[in-house]
Amino acid sequence: MIEAVLVRVSQYEHNIHRYTLFLFRLKMTCSRLAIPYLITMRGDDVTHELLLTLEYESAVPLFRQLYERLRHAIIHGLLKEGEALPPSRTLCAALGISRTVVLEAYGQLQAEGFVDARRGSRTYVTYKRDQVRHESEPLTPMGLECNERVASLLAQDDAPLWIGENRKKKAPQLGVIDFKHGVPAYDAFPIKTWSRCLVAASGSAGPDMLGYAPAEGSPALRAEIARMLRHSRSLHAEPEQIVVTTGATQALDILSRVLLGPGAQVFLEDPSHPVLRKLFAFAMADVVSVPVDRGGLRVDRMDAYAGGKDAGTKLVYVTPSHQFPLGVTMSLERRLQLLDWANRHGAFIVEDDYDSEFLYEGHKLSSLAGLLHSRNVIYVGSFSKILYPALRIGYAVLQDDKLKSAFLAVKWISDRLTPTLEQETLALFMQSGGYARHIKAMNALYAERRACLVECLRASFGSRIVLHGSEAGLHLTVELESDMSERDIARLALAEGVIVYPAADYFMLENPVKPSFILGYAALTPYQIRKGVAVLHRIVNGR
Amino acid sequence: MIEAVLVRVSQYEHNIHRYTLFLFRLKMTCSRLAIPYLITMRGDDVTHELLLTLEYESAVPLFRQLYERLRHAIIHGLLKEGEALPPSRTLCAALGISRTVVLEAYGQLQAEGFVDARRGSRTYVTYKRDQVRHESEPLTPMGLECNERVASLLAQDDAPLWIGENRKKKAPQLGVIDFKHGVPAYDAFPIKTWSRCLVAASGSAGPDMLGYAPAEGSPALRAEIARMLRHSRSLHAEPEQIVVTTGATQALDILSRVLLGPGAQVFLEDPSHPVLRKLFAFAMADVVSVPVDRGGLRVDRMDAYAGGKDAGTKLVYVTPSHQFPLGVTMSLERRLQLLDWANRHGAFIVEDDYDSEFLYEGHKLSSLAGLLHSRNVIYVGSFSKILYPALRIGYAVLQDDKLKSAFLAVKWISDRLTPTLEQETLALFMQSGGYARHIKAMNALYAERRACLVECLRASFGSRIVLHGSEAGLHLTVELESDMSERDIARLALAEGVIVYPAADYFMLENPVKPSFILGYAALTPYQIRKGVAVLHRIVNGR
Repeated sequence: MIEAVLVRVSQYEHNIHRYTLFLFRLKMTCSRLAIPYLITMRGDDVTHELLLTLEYESAVPLFRQLYERLRHAIIHGLLKEGEALPPSRTLCAALGISRTVVLEAYGQLQAEGFVDARRGSRTYVTYKRDQVRHESEPLTPMGLECNERVASLLAQDDAPLWIGENRKKKAPQLGVIDFKHGVPAYDAFPIKTWSRCLVAASGSAGPDMLGYAPAEGSPALRAEIARMLRHSRSLHAEPEQIVVTTGATQALDILSRVLLGPGAQVFLEDPSHPVLRKLFAFAMADVVSVPVDRGGLRVDRMDAYAGGKDAGTKLVYVTPSHQFPLGVTMSLERRLQLLDWANRHGAFIVEDDYDSEFLYEGHKLSSLAGLLHSRNVIYVGSFSKILYPALRIGYAVLQDDKLKSAFLAVKWISDRLTPTLEQETLALFMQSGGYARHIKAMNALYAERRACLVECLRASFGSRIVLHGSEAGLHLTVELESDMSERDIARLALAEGVIVYPAADYFMLENPVKPSFILGYAALTPYQIRKGVAVLHRIVNGR
Repeated sequence: MIEAVLVRVSQYEHNIHRYTLFLFRLKMTCSRLAIPYLITMRGDDVTHELLLTLEYESAVPLFRQLYERLRHAIIHGLLKEGEALPPSRTLCAALGISRTVVLEAYGQLQAEGFVDARRGSRTYVTYKRDQVRHESEPLTPMGLECNERVASLLAQDDAPLWIGENRKKKAPQLGVIDFKHGVPAYDAFPIKTWSRCLVAASGSAGPDMLGYAPAEGSPALRAEIARMLRHSRSLHAEPEQIVVTTGATQALDILSRVLLGPGAQVFLEDPSHPVLRKLFAFAMADVVSVPVDRGGLRVDRMDAYAGGKDAGTKLVYVTPSHQFPLGVTMSLERRLQLLDWANRHGAFIVEDDYDSEFLYEGHKLSSLAGLLHSRNVIYVGSFSKILYPALRIGYAVLQDDKLKSAFLAVKWISDRLTPTLEQETLALFMQSGGYARHIKAMNALYAERRACLVECLRASFGSRIVLHGSEAGLHLTVELESDMSERDIARLALAEGVIVYPAADYFMLENPVKPSFILGYAALTPYQIRKGVAVLHRIVNGR
């Protein structure tokens, strides 16, 4: 919407008639549309017309709009160095705005060095257009080495929809049944109790709550985490050994930045979460995949997979409580083997205990980090699965002081600290017993959903399926007897609004022989589970 | 507190009398103290006594306590491989606990592989103590290359108390007057309005609020930021070009990870914030300090300081609105020179606009990023100074698509996303107008505090001081006429409970000729300011 028109016309232009005609028409048009207009006349070329459009209804102050339009005209050469701006009285009359507004805009332009009022009563453009002589080159954002690292991360974008952690993932579509893993039941989150804690925490606002807090995290929360680990994971850590992070992802990222670099080796269970390979590769480490069997990581084969390399830092990432995604529990023998292997190689072990709070059969096993309390075992925990992912609170237990100092230093440059409010809210939630109650309630809820999924699968597929890792956690792995490929099944299911996650996407070494899927069930109702399995069954049976 | 005693005694021990005596005394002591006790008798050595201490009042379940004590005894060789655990009936009677508790503990030990009940009616230890043959080596946490990087970060710990961003900083001591910069007035934060937004935001809990949201940040917040930048910084960015980060620090860290690497050069204003040198050095870039004068960064001297190096990525970090810490505004001429220089070298410019919302004299200048809207200028903003630091919300404006993709990929492995609740709360706070009102109120409050500081300084020191950068922001720089060194003044002030920040700590090239201090005033009351300046005056005047 044009609100005003400013036209510059040369006094001595030969085809002045053309302009007179133009101006006449302009005047007519403007008056018909009730647009204020302005004509200034000066002695140079007439190739530009400056349209001064002001939005009178806008929240942007008028002076700022006028300033912006004039600045734009100056930068783009419509008003050239040495040319005068219209006298403020003329401009304010033409635009129907107060003179203060015009003077403020001129003052702003002068403060920024675009114009100068010192030479007489008029304001002249002082901006030299040719000061930026060089064109901005096409961007080559990174040095070669960084380029590779970033490129490997970006490759993730090509991942199919069913790769769970696609960071471009949009909000779930209505009606779609998504067997995504690692997602809790949002509708069962005790939002009222949580909000009460939130209000209580935010009510105690003061420098402690609002200011730069220690990078380690809230003392109250760390005390609660220490208590919880002592009671339920047999991990006896002091609150001082715990660092709160912005999600468990940040803990892993910081560890990779502190411990890894070119020449380092990271040993991952195979299968494992694809994002881990990206994360550790971005730290320039070699990622070595080691197979998993019923006892967990094949520690006996690690040296063979390492390829004889014995220099550089070594780090082993494991999920001993509930292997991701297979759900295997690492046996005591393997745990001891792994500790021995790590000691022999001076290696670090990262124990990611991502969902051990949920158990439906058997015994909840203690943590690897608490077994011998070795300083080279780093325990990483998360509240994303128990509470909700957008909370972004995780933690690392660092049993070695030197490592803790380094970790904190990198935490400080990563984001200084994890937002205080959520930490204090969580501490209150844990202190009040709401946390323990929630875990209990979710265990009951998820047990139901799991039972529903297991029953549906068995009822539909009978002996043609094998289930893995259904004793605990928020997902299980199903192996199907079928001639169709995993990807075909997933694609056909997707077409019917059901998302299942082919296990092959999690393997680096050998793919599973039979089509296998990782199925998360915690966020799905029994109705959705039944419907989803029915679709799967129909597809596998060729309708 | 001993709650029970378990003693193993050899049946065939020759000096059985000694043990009989011991046991008798133990029995007496235990019964006098009402401690249950238990004696098991087996055929091997008698060198160990196992104390089974249970805390009956503890929140830790009894079965878990018993499990832990037995596990500890097994791991540490008090119960050896092949030895039997006491029969469950005996143990429950001795400890005064239910048999279920004992069986649960035994079951847990068996599930974890420490014991086995298969060989007959008794439960036997199966754990082999010598499985971890190797001692954990002394930890050498990082490869050499990482080591250096981490070491350079850790060196920060040696910084004196008055380095503002000391990450070990404890909560402020009572009565101490801290002229820390970059800290808003916590007590003036509109906690009620904010809490209302918080509750409103958390009330709309659903997958959108609780689940994994896009790494870019909340669409509502990004729209508000885009509007704000358009209105007050003349930066016309689409919401799609804005990425919300966990504080501005994370934006800088991610940029350093995306753009930098060995061989890269980062140009910093001198003086500048010490943490920047750490952050960019950690990304393995060479940090080049370039002096600042009254027009801002000396762009004409950048090539000389770069040392003729022309390979590798170049990045220039600037604070054009209000140079940190000197408070200079970068002139238009310099801005254009800098853009030209960056284009010539294919360099990136990071514009950190950390406190431009606060202005007491003159005009608020537009952003550098909005001047020509060059794709190689990255605008970084923060809400730490306007609202509160523990909020941890900052953002980057990425005008280049390729760069934005890379930035998001690294954001995703850094912490996936910034907590959603705070983002939605802030969006509501901005939409409701509370944000604009707060900025207005803080401008008035800080103007008062600034005026108080300026008056006090002038009244105390007269013509013996020069002030810099007091027109805007949350701090000013004062240059004193004194024979004492900055550090001596700071040390003496600290002894009197006043913390001032020597400007020399921010310089890399030449220190200021006269003792200079960075004084933040936003968080101090006029009373504290007067008292603080009086202490400073007394010290400089030699009492």
